[in-house]
Amino acid sequence: MTYCLAIALDEGLVFCSDSRTNAGADRVSSYSKMHRFAFPGERSLVLLSAGNLATSQAVVAQIHRDLEAGESAPIHRAEYVSDVADYIGDLIAKESAKYSAAGGPGAELDASATFILGGQIAGQQPELYMVYPEGNHITPSQAHPFLQIGETKYGKPILDRIIRADTPIQTALRCAIVSLDSTMRSNVTVGPPIEVLFYQKDSLQPYEWYAELDESHPYLAELRQSWDDNVKSAVEQLPTLDFAFLQRR
Amino acid sequence: MTYCLAIALDEGLVFCSDSRTNAGADRVSSYSKMHRFAFPGERSLVLLSAGNLATSQAVVAQIHRDLEAGESAPIHRAEYVSDVADYIGDLIAKESAKYSAAGGPGAELDASATFILGGQIAGQQPELYMVYPEGNHITPSQAHPFLQIGETKYGKPILDRIIRADTPIQTALRCAIVSLDSTMRSNVTVGPPIEVLFYQKDSLQPYEWYAELDESHPYLAELRQSWDDNVKSAVEQLPTLDFAFLQRR
Repeated sequence: MTYCLAIALDEGLVFCSDSRTNAGADRVSSYSKMHRFAFPGERSLVLLSAGNLATSQAVVAQIHRDLEAGESAPIHRAEYVSDVADYIGDLIAKESAKYSAAGGPGAELDASATFILGGQIAGQQPELYMVYPEGNHITPSQAHPFLQIGETKYGKPILDRIIRADTPIQTALRCAIVSLDSTMRSNVTVGPPIEVLFYQKDSLQPYEWYAELDESHPYLAELRQSWDDNVKSAVEQLPTLDFAFLQRR
Repeated sequence: MTYCLAIALDEGLVFCSDSRTNAGADRVSSYSKMHRFAFPGERSLVLLSAGNLATSQAVVAQIHRDLEAGESAPIHRAEYVSDVADYIGDLIAKESAKYSAAGGPGAELDASATFILGGQIAGQQPELYMVYPEGNHITPSQAHPFLQIGETKYGKPILDRIIRADTPIQTALRCAIVSLDSTMRSNVTVGPPIEVLFYQKDSLQPYEWYAELDESHPYLAELRQSWDDNVKSAVEQLPTLDFAFLQRR
Protein backbone atom coordinates (compact mmCIF):
# COMPACT_ATOMS: atom_id res chain seq x y z
CA MET A 1 0.00 0.00 0.00
CA THR A 2 0.95 3.68 -0.06
CA TYR A 3 -0.12 6.99 1.32
CA CYS A 4 0.46 10.25 -0.57
CA LEU A 5 -1.19 13.63 -0.23
CA ALA A 6 -0.99 17.07 -1.78
CA ILE A 7 -2.38 20.40 -0.60
CA ALA A 8 -3.21 23.47 -2.69
CA LEU A 9 -2.45 26.52 -0.54
CA ASP A 10 -2.78 30.15 -1.58
CA GLU A 11 1.02 30.32 -1.16
CA GLY A 12 1.86 27.19 -3.12
CA LEU A 13 1.65 23.41 -3.18
CA VAL A 14 2.61 20.89 -0.49
CA PHE A 15 3.41 17.28 -1.45
CA CYS A 16 4.03 14.46 0.99
CA SER A 17 4.52 10.71 0.43
CA ASP A 18 5.57 7.53 2.18
CA SER A 19 8.01 5.04 0.61
CA ARG A 20 6.77 1.54 1.41
CA THR A 21 5.69 -0.95 -1.22
CA ASN A 22 4.59 -4.48 -0.57
CA ALA A 23 3.51 -7.45 -2.61
CA GLY A 24 2.37 -9.73 0.16
CA ALA A 25 3.80 -9.60 3.68
CA ASP A 26 7.26 -10.89 2.75
CA ARG A 27 7.97 -8.69 -0.27
CA VAL A 28 8.30 -5.31 1.39
CA SER A 29 10.53 -2.69 -0.21
CA SER A 30 11.18 1.02 -0.17
CA TYR A 31 10.64 3.13 -3.32
CA SER A 32 10.22 6.86 -3.74
CA LYS A 33 6.71 7.74 -4.87
CA MET A 34 7.54 11.39 -5.54
CA HIS A 35 8.64 12.18 -9.08
CA ARG A 36 9.74 15.64 -10.19
CA PHE A 37 9.78 17.09 -13.69
CA ALA A 38 11.00 20.67 -13.96
CA PHE A 39 12.23 23.21 -16.47
CA PRO A 40 13.36 26.11 -14.27
CA GLY A 41 11.59 29.37 -15.03
CA GLU A 42 9.16 27.62 -17.34
CA ARG A 43 7.37 24.77 -15.55
CA SER A 44 7.67 22.74 -12.36
CA LEU A 45 5.64 19.53 -11.89
CA VAL A 46 5.45 16.89 -9.17
CA LEU A 47 3.86 13.46 -9.56
CA LEU A 48 2.87 11.17 -6.66
CA SER A 49 1.99 7.53 -7.37
CA ALA A 50 -0.09 4.81 -5.69
CA GLY A 51 -1.29 1.41 -6.77
CA ASN A 52 0.38 -1.28 -8.84
CA LEU A 53 4.15 -0.63 -8.73
CA ALA A 54 4.81 -2.09 -12.19
CA THR A 55 2.20 0.24 -13.71
CA SER A 56 3.44 3.35 -11.90
CA GLN A 57 7.06 2.57 -12.78
CA ALA A 58 6.08 2.02 -16.43
CA VAL A 59 4.22 5.35 -16.51
CA VAL A 60 7.15 7.26 -15.00
CA ALA A 61 9.61 5.48 -17.33
CA GLN A 62 7.49 6.41 -20.36
CA ILE A 63 7.42 10.07 -19.26
CA HIS A 64 11.23 10.02 -19.11
CA ARG A 65 11.50 8.34 -22.51
CA ASP A 66 9.14 10.92 -24.01
CA LEU A 67 11.21 13.70 -22.41
CA GLU A 68 14.37 12.33 -24.00
CA ALA A 69 12.68 12.87 -27.36
CA GLY A 70 13.10 16.58 -26.60
CA GLU A 71 10.89 19.65 -26.99
CA SER A 72 7.99 17.69 -28.40
CA ALA A 73 7.45 15.74 -25.16
CA PRO A 74 3.89 16.28 -23.89
CA ILE A 75 5.15 17.27 -20.45
CA HIS A 76 7.34 19.91 -22.10
CA ARG A 77 4.87 21.44 -24.52
CA ALA A 78 1.65 21.23 -22.44
CA GLU A 79 -0.02 24.63 -22.06
CA TYR A 80 -1.92 23.70 -18.91
CA VAL A 81 -1.26 21.30 -16.06
CA SER A 82 -4.54 19.62 -17.02
CA ASP A 83 -3.00 18.74 -20.40
CA VAL A 84 -0.25 16.91 -18.50
CA ALA A 85 -2.96 15.18 -16.43
CA ASP A 86 -4.62 14.03 -19.69
CA TYR A 87 -1.28 12.71 -20.96
CA ILE A 88 -0.58 10.82 -17.73
CA GLY A 89 -4.14 9.49 -17.75
CA ASP A 90 -3.54 8.06 -21.23
CA LEU A 91 -0.30 6.42 -20.07
CA ILE A 92 -1.96 4.81 -17.03
CA ALA A 93 -4.93 3.51 -18.99
CA LYS A 94 -2.72 2.09 -21.77
CA GLU A 95 -0.30 0.45 -19.35
CA SER A 96 -2.90 -1.17 -17.08
CA ALA A 97 -5.00 -2.32 -20.06
CA LYS A 98 -2.07 -4.44 -21.26
CA TYR A 99 -2.53 -6.77 -18.31
CA SER A 100 -6.25 -6.77 -17.75
CA ALA A 101 -7.31 -7.63 -21.32
CA ALA A 102 -10.10 -10.21 -21.14
CA GLY A 103 -8.79 -13.74 -21.45
CA GLY A 104 -5.14 -12.69 -21.11
CA PRO A 105 -2.83 -14.15 -18.46
CA GLY A 106 -3.41 -11.06 -16.31
CA ALA A 107 -7.20 -10.98 -16.60
CA GLU A 108 -7.47 -11.37 -12.83
CA LEU A 109 -4.69 -8.88 -12.09
CA ASP A 110 -5.47 -5.43 -10.72
CA ALA A 111 -2.74 -3.45 -12.46
CA SER A 112 -4.40 -0.11 -11.74
CA ALA A 113 -2.54 2.93 -10.45
CA THR A 114 -3.66 6.36 -9.26
CA PHE A 115 -1.58 9.55 -9.39
CA ILE A 116 -1.59 13.03 -7.93
CA LEU A 117 -0.15 15.62 -10.30
CA GLY A 118 0.59 19.15 -9.21
CA GLY A 119 2.64 22.11 -10.30
CA GLN A 120 2.67 25.24 -12.36
CA ILE A 121 3.31 26.25 -15.96
CA ALA A 122 4.52 29.83 -16.63
CA GLY A 123 1.57 32.18 -17.21
CA GLN A 124 -0.90 29.88 -15.39
CA GLN A 125 -1.95 29.34 -11.78
CA PRO A 126 -0.58 26.37 -9.80
CA GLU A 127 -2.88 23.36 -10.20
CA LEU A 128 -3.47 20.02 -8.53
CA TYR A 129 -5.10 16.90 -10.05
CA MET A 130 -5.91 13.38 -9.00
CA VAL A 131 -5.58 11.13 -12.07
CA TYR A 132 -7.68 7.97 -11.80
CA PRO A 133 -6.73 4.52 -13.15
CA GLU A 134 -9.20 5.08 -16.03
CA GLY A 135 -7.33 8.23 -17.05
CA ASN A 136 -9.85 10.90 -16.04
CA HIS A 137 -9.00 13.44 -13.34
CA ILE A 138 -10.38 15.81 -10.70
CA THR A 139 -9.14 18.88 -8.81
CA PRO A 140 -9.58 19.31 -5.04
CA SER A 141 -12.60 21.18 -3.66
CA GLN A 142 -12.34 24.81 -2.53
CA ALA A 143 -13.51 23.91 0.99
CA HIS A 144 -11.02 21.04 1.46
CA PRO A 145 -8.14 21.86 -0.90
CA PHE A 146 -6.25 18.57 -0.58
CA LEU A 147 -6.03 15.25 -2.43
CA GLN A 148 -5.03 11.85 -1.06
CA ILE A 149 -4.19 8.51 -2.70
CA GLY A 150 -3.56 5.04 -1.26
CA GLU A 151 -4.32 4.34 2.40
CA THR A 152 -6.18 7.64 2.91
CA LYS A 153 -8.55 7.16 5.83
CA TYR A 154 -6.30 7.20 8.92
CA GLY A 155 -4.80 10.55 8.01
CA LYS A 156 -7.94 12.32 6.77
CA PRO A 157 -9.51 13.67 10.01
CA ILE A 158 -6.52 15.91 10.81
CA LEU A 159 -6.60 17.34 7.27
CA ASP A 160 -10.39 17.85 7.42
CA ARG A 161 -9.97 19.85 10.63
CA ILE A 162 -6.97 21.99 9.73
CA ILE A 163 -6.42 22.45 6.02
CA ARG A 164 -7.89 25.46 4.20
CA ALA A 165 -6.48 27.39 1.22
CA ASP A 166 -5.20 30.15 3.52
CA THR A 167 -3.54 27.80 6.04
CA PRO A 168 0.06 29.00 6.64
CA ILE A 169 2.79 26.91 4.97
CA GLN A 170 4.34 25.73 8.25
CA THR A 171 0.96 24.60 9.60
CA ALA A 172 0.18 22.70 6.40
CA LEU A 173 3.62 21.03 6.34
CA ARG A 174 3.37 19.88 9.97
CA CYS A 175 -0.17 18.71 9.38
CA ALA A 176 0.86 16.73 6.28
CA ILE A 177 3.67 15.00 8.18
CA VAL A 178 1.37 14.22 11.14
CA SER A 179 -1.17 12.77 8.68
CA LEU A 180 1.56 10.54 7.17
CA ASP A 181 3.02 9.59 10.54
CA SER A 182 -0.37 8.68 12.04
CA THR A 183 -1.03 6.44 9.05
CA MET A 184 2.36 4.72 9.43
CA ARG A 185 1.58 4.12 13.08
CA SER A 186 -1.84 2.59 12.41
CA ASN A 187 -1.02 0.62 9.24
CA VAL A 188 2.17 -1.34 8.54
CA THR A 189 1.78 -1.11 4.75
CA VAL A 190 2.69 2.59 4.91
CA GLY A 191 6.28 3.29 5.92
CA PRO A 192 9.27 5.63 5.98
CA PRO A 193 11.11 7.54 4.67
CA ILE A 194 8.58 10.37 4.38
CA GLU A 195 9.28 12.77 1.52
CA VAL A 196 7.95 16.31 1.80
CA LEU A 197 8.17 19.08 -0.78
CA PHE A 198 6.87 22.64 -0.88
CA TYR A 199 6.48 24.39 -4.22
CA GLN A 200 6.22 28.16 -3.81
CA LYS A 201 3.66 29.75 -6.13
CA ASP A 202 5.16 31.55 -9.16
CA SER A 203 8.69 30.41 -8.33
CA LEU A 204 8.78 27.93 -11.23
CA GLN A 205 11.77 26.31 -9.56
CA PRO A 206 12.06 22.55 -9.28
CA TYR A 207 13.00 21.33 -5.80
CA GLU A 208 13.09 24.43 -3.69
CA TRP A 209 12.03 23.04 -0.38
CA TYR A 210 12.42 19.32 -0.07
CA ALA A 211 13.20 16.95 2.78
CA GLU A 212 13.43 13.20 3.17
CA LEU A 213 12.70 12.06 6.71
CA ASP A 214 13.76 8.53 7.51
CA GLU A 215 12.67 6.60 10.58
CA SER A 216 15.53 7.93 12.72
CA HIS A 217 15.49 11.53 11.48
CA PRO A 218 15.75 13.89 14.48
CA TYR A 219 12.97 16.16 13.17
CA LEU A 220 10.58 13.22 12.80
CA ALA A 221 11.45 11.97 16.31
CA GLU A 222 10.90 15.45 17.75
CA LEU A 223 7.62 15.92 15.88
CA ARG A 224 6.30 12.52 17.01
CA GLN A 225 7.09 13.17 20.66
CA SER A 226 5.60 16.64 20.48
CA TRP A 227 2.43 15.43 18.72
CA ASP A 228 1.98 12.60 21.22
CA ASP A 229 2.27 15.05 24.12
CA ASN A 230 0.06 17.67 22.47
CA VAL A 231 -2.70 15.20 21.58
CA LYS A 232 -2.68 13.83 25.11
CA SER A 233 -3.12 17.28 26.59
CA ALA A 234 -5.73 18.11 23.90
CA VAL A 235 -7.77 15.12 25.14
CA GLU A 236 -7.26 16.11 28.80
CA GLN A 237 -8.56 19.61 28.06
CA LEU A 238 -11.85 18.35 26.61
CA PRO A 239 -15.04 18.94 28.62
CA THR A 240 -15.85 16.21 31.15
CA LEU A 241 -18.63 13.81 30.15
CA ASP A 242 -20.81 14.12 33.23
CA PHE A 243 -23.35 11.31 32.93
CA ALA A 244 -25.37 12.73 35.84
CA PHE A 245 -25.93 15.86 33.80
CA LEU A 246 -26.95 13.85 30.75
CA GLN A 247 -29.86 11.49 30.56
CA ARG A 248 -29.45 8.38 32.69
CA ARG A 249 -31.23 5.18 31.82
CA MET B 1 -21.84 1.70 7.19
CA THR B 2 -21.30 1.87 10.92
CA TYR B 3 -18.64 2.63 13.44
CA CYS B 4 -18.59 1.01 16.90
CA LEU B 5 -15.79 0.61 19.40
CA ALA B 6 -15.23 -0.86 22.83
CA ILE B 7 -12.37 -0.39 25.28
CA ALA B 8 -11.26 -2.73 28.08
CA LEU B 9 -9.98 -0.54 30.92
CA ASP B 10 -8.72 -1.73 34.29
CA GLU B 11 -11.75 0.08 35.76
CA GLY B 12 -14.34 -1.32 33.39
CA LEU B 13 -15.60 -1.35 29.81
CA VAL B 14 -16.40 1.58 27.50
CA PHE B 15 -18.80 1.10 24.56
CA CYS B 16 -19.49 3.68 21.88
CA SER B 17 -21.52 3.45 18.66
CA ASP B 18 -22.98 5.57 15.88
CA SER B 19 -26.57 5.12 14.63
CA ARG B 20 -26.54 5.50 10.85
CA THR B 21 -27.49 2.73 8.47
CA ASN B 22 -27.64 3.04 4.73
CA ALA B 23 -28.59 0.83 1.83
CA GLY B 24 -27.48 3.05 -1.02
CA ALA B 25 -27.38 6.83 -0.78
CA ASP B 26 -31.16 7.33 -0.62
CA ARG B 27 -32.01 4.72 2.01
CA VAL B 28 -30.43 6.29 5.07
CA SER B 29 -31.93 5.55 8.48
CA SER B 30 -31.08 5.70 12.13
CA TYR B 31 -30.95 2.54 14.26
CA SER B 32 -29.35 1.88 17.60
CA LYS B 33 -26.42 -0.53 17.30
CA MET B 34 -25.99 -0.92 21.05
CA HIS B 35 -27.94 -3.82 22.58
CA ARG B 36 -27.97 -4.53 26.32
CA PHE B 37 -28.73 -7.81 28.08
CA ALA B 38 -28.53 -7.70 31.85
CA PHE B 39 -29.51 -9.64 34.94
CA PRO B 40 -28.61 -7.26 37.77
CA GLY B 41 -26.15 -8.71 40.25
CA GLU B 42 -25.58 -11.72 38.01
CA ARG B 43 -24.46 -10.65 34.55
CA SER B 44 -24.32 -7.54 32.40
CA LEU B 45 -23.63 -7.76 28.65
CA VAL B 46 -23.47 -5.24 25.81
CA LEU B 47 -23.55 -6.11 22.12
CA LEU B 48 -22.51 -3.73 19.31
CA SER B 49 -23.38 -4.61 15.71
CA ALA B 50 -22.01 -3.76 12.26
CA GLY B 51 -22.65 -5.11 8.79
CA ASN B 52 -25.84 -6.31 7.14
CA LEU B 53 -28.77 -4.81 9.08
CA ALA B 54 -31.14 -7.71 8.37
CA THR B 55 -28.58 -10.17 9.76
CA SER B 56 -27.82 -8.13 12.88
CA GLN B 57 -31.52 -7.55 13.54
CA ALA B 58 -32.20 -11.28 13.11
CA VAL B 59 -29.40 -12.16 15.54
CA VAL B 60 -30.64 -9.72 18.18
CA ALA B 61 -34.25 -10.89 17.69
CA GLN B 62 -33.18 -14.52 18.13
CA ILE B 63 -31.35 -13.64 21.37
CA HIS B 64 -34.58 -12.07 22.67
CA ARG B 65 -36.67 -15.08 21.60
CA ASP B 66 -34.22 -17.42 23.33
CA LEU B 67 -34.37 -15.24 26.45
CA GLU B 68 -38.16 -15.49 26.49
CA ALA B 69 -37.73 -19.25 26.78
CA GLY B 70 -36.43 -18.50 30.29
CA GLU B 71 -33.55 -19.79 32.38
CA SER B 72 -32.30 -22.14 29.70
CA ALA B 73 -31.39 -19.28 27.32
CA PRO B 74 -27.69 -19.46 26.40
CA ILE B 75 -27.16 -15.82 27.37
CA HIS B 76 -28.63 -16.60 30.79
CA ARG B 77 -26.82 -19.82 31.60
CA ALA B 78 -23.40 -19.11 30.03
CA GLU B 79 -20.56 -19.47 32.53
CA TYR B 80 -18.15 -17.25 30.63
CA VAL B 81 -18.58 -14.28 28.32
CA SER B 82 -16.74 -16.37 25.71
CA ASP B 83 -19.63 -18.89 25.81
CA VAL B 84 -21.96 -16.04 24.90
CA ALA B 85 -19.55 -15.10 22.08
CA ASP B 86 -19.74 -18.70 20.81
CA TYR B 87 -23.54 -18.58 20.92
CA ILE B 88 -23.70 -15.28 19.04
CA GLY B 89 -21.15 -16.59 16.54
CA ASP B 90 -23.45 -19.53 15.82
CA LEU B 91 -26.43 -17.22 15.33
CA ILE B 92 -24.51 -14.97 12.89
CA ALA B 93 -23.15 -17.87 10.86
CA LYS B 94 -26.58 -19.56 10.64
CA GLU B 95 -28.38 -16.36 9.71
CA SER B 96 -25.97 -15.19 7.03
CA ALA B 97 -25.67 -18.72 5.56
CA LYS B 98 -29.41 -18.65 4.77
CA TYR B 99 -28.82 -16.02 2.11
CA SER B 100 -25.45 -16.91 0.72
CA ALA B 101 -26.13 -20.59 -0.05
CA ALA B 102 -24.64 -21.42 -3.45
CA GLY B 103 -27.18 -21.12 -6.23
CA GLY B 104 -29.80 -19.46 -4.01
CA PRO B 105 -31.33 -16.08 -4.82
CA GLY B 106 -28.93 -14.40 -2.37
CA ALA B 107 -25.77 -16.09 -3.63
CA GLU B 108 -24.30 -12.69 -4.55
CA LEU B 109 -25.49 -11.02 -1.33
CA ASP B 110 -23.06 -10.14 1.43
CA ALA B 111 -25.29 -10.78 4.43
CA SER B 112 -22.36 -10.84 6.85
CA ALA B 113 -22.34 -9.03 10.18
CA THR B 114 -19.67 -8.46 12.83
CA PHE B 115 -20.29 -7.90 16.53
CA ILE B 116 -18.46 -6.66 19.59
CA LEU B 117 -19.57 -8.39 22.78
CA GLY B 118 -18.48 -7.19 26.19
CA GLY B 119 -19.52 -7.50 29.78
CA GLN B 120 -19.12 -9.49 32.94
CA ILE B 121 -20.60 -12.61 34.51
CA ALA B 122 -20.52 -12.89 38.33
CA GLY B 123 -17.34 -14.59 39.55
CA GLN B 124 -15.45 -13.78 36.30
CA GLN B 125 -13.44 -10.83 35.03
CA PRO B 126 -15.00 -8.38 32.53
CA GLU B 127 -14.29 -9.54 28.97
CA LEU B 128 -14.43 -8.13 25.47
CA TYR B 129 -14.77 -10.06 22.18
CA MET B 130 -15.02 -9.30 18.50
CA VAL B 131 -17.26 -11.94 16.88
CA TYR B 132 -16.56 -12.39 13.17
CA PRO B 133 -19.15 -13.17 10.48
CA GLU B 134 -17.87 -16.77 10.44
CA GLY B 135 -18.65 -17.10 14.14
CA ASN B 136 -15.13 -17.21 15.60
CA HIS B 137 -13.92 -14.48 17.95
CA ILE B 138 -10.91 -12.62 19.33
CA THR B 139 -10.14 -10.50 22.40
CA PRO B 140 -8.24 -7.20 22.20
CA SER B 141 -4.46 -7.10 22.70
CA GLN B 142 -2.91 -6.08 26.00
CA ALA B 143 -1.00 -3.23 24.34
CA HIS B 144 -4.02 -1.76 22.54
CA PRO B 145 -7.02 -2.88 24.59
CA PHE B 146 -9.75 -1.78 22.19
CA LEU B 147 -11.84 -3.32 19.41
CA GLN B 148 -13.47 -1.57 16.46
CA ILE B 149 -16.04 -2.67 13.86
CA GLY B 150 -17.37 -0.99 10.71
CA GLU B 151 -15.66 2.13 9.37
CA THR B 152 -12.65 1.80 11.68
CA LYS B 153 -9.75 3.63 10.05
CA TYR B 154 -10.54 7.33 10.54
CA GLY B 155 -10.89 6.96 14.29
CA LYS B 156 -7.99 4.57 14.93
CA PRO B 157 -4.97 6.93 15.24
CA ILE B 158 -6.40 8.73 18.30
CA LEU B 159 -7.07 5.38 20.01
CA ASP B 160 -3.59 4.08 19.10
CA ARG B 161 -2.03 7.15 20.72
CA ILE B 162 -4.11 7.39 23.88
CA ILE B 163 -5.77 4.15 24.96
CA ARG B 164 -4.03 1.82 27.44
CA ALA B 165 -5.58 -0.46 30.07
CA ASP B 166 -4.80 2.07 32.81
CA THR B 167 -6.20 5.09 30.93
CA PRO B 168 -8.61 6.97 33.27
CA ILE B 169 -12.33 6.53 32.49
CA GLN B 170 -12.91 10.17 31.58
CA THR B 171 -9.96 10.18 29.17
CA ALA B 172 -11.16 6.98 27.51
CA LEU B 173 -14.74 8.29 27.19
CA ARG B 174 -13.65 11.56 25.61
CA CYS B 175 -11.28 9.72 23.33
CA ALA B 176 -14.03 7.31 22.22
CA ILE B 177 -16.39 10.19 21.41
CA VAL B 178 -13.66 12.06 19.52
CA SER B 179 -12.91 8.88 17.56
CA LEU B 180 -16.63 8.58 16.65
CA ASP B 181 -17.02 12.26 15.89
CA SER B 182 -13.91 12.41 13.66
CA THR B 183 -15.27 9.46 11.70
CA MET B 184 -18.69 11.13 11.28
CA ARG B 185 -16.94 14.24 10.02
CA SER B 186 -14.83 12.39 7.45
CA ASN B 187 -17.42 9.82 6.29
CA VAL B 188 -21.13 10.44 5.70
CA THR B 189 -22.08 6.79 6.22
CA VAL B 190 -21.39 7.16 9.96
CA GLY B 191 -23.83 9.43 11.77
CA PRO B 192 -25.47 10.55 15.02
CA PRO B 193 -26.80 9.97 17.58
CA ILE B 194 -23.69 8.66 19.34
CA GLU B 195 -24.42 6.21 22.13
CA VAL B 196 -21.86 5.85 24.90
CA LEU B 197 -21.94 3.47 27.85
CA PHE B 198 -19.53 2.80 30.69
CA TYR B 199 -19.74 -0.50 32.56
CA GLN B 200 -17.96 -0.34 35.91
CA LYS B 201 -16.01 -3.49 36.75
CA ASP B 202 -17.73 -5.78 39.30
CA SER B 203 -20.86 -3.63 39.41
CA LEU B 204 -22.93 -6.23 37.48
CA GLN B 205 -25.48 -3.50 36.85
CA PRO B 206 -27.05 -3.04 33.43
CA TYR B 207 -27.03 0.57 32.21
CA GLU B 208 -25.19 2.46 34.87
CA TRP B 209 -23.61 5.17 32.85
CA TYR B 210 -25.21 5.72 29.51
CA ALA B 211 -25.74 8.73 27.25
CA GLU B 212 -27.20 9.30 23.83
CA LEU B 213 -25.73 12.33 22.11
CA ASP B 214 -27.68 13.58 19.12
CA GLU B 215 -26.35 16.07 16.57
CA SER B 216 -27.53 19.08 18.59
CA HIS B 217 -26.59 17.80 22.05
CA PRO B 218 -24.84 20.61 23.99
CA TYR B 219 -22.09 18.27 25.24
CA LEU B 220 -21.29 17.12 21.69
CA ALA B 221 -21.23 20.73 20.45
CA GLU B 222 -18.92 21.75 23.31
CA LEU B 223 -16.63 18.76 22.78
CA ARG B 224 -16.39 19.42 19.03
CA GLN B 225 -15.50 23.06 19.49
CA SER B 226 -12.99 22.23 22.18
CA TRP B 227 -11.37 19.45 20.13
CA ASP B 228 -11.16 21.67 17.06
CA ASP B 229 -9.43 24.39 19.10
CA ASN B 230 -7.15 21.95 20.92
CA VAL B 231 -6.06 20.15 17.74
CA LYS B 232 -5.31 23.48 16.06
CA SER B 233 -3.11 24.57 18.93
CA ALA B 234 -1.54 21.08 19.07
CA VAL B 235 -0.48 21.55 15.41
CA GLU B 236 0.79 25.08 16.09
CA GLN B 237 2.95 23.82 18.94
CA LEU B 238 4.75 21.26 16.76
CA PRO B 239 8.41 21.92 15.93
CA THR B 240 8.99 24.03 12.81
CA LEU B 241 10.09 22.13 9.72
CA ASP B 242 13.17 24.16 8.84
CA PHE B 243 14.18 23.03 5.37
CA ALA B 244 17.48 24.93 5.63
CA PHE B 245 18.41 22.69 8.55
CA LEU B 246 17.43 19.55 6.67
CA GLN B 247 18.95 18.35 3.45
CA ARG B 248 18.19 20.60 0.47
CA ARG B 249 18.16 19.26 -3.05
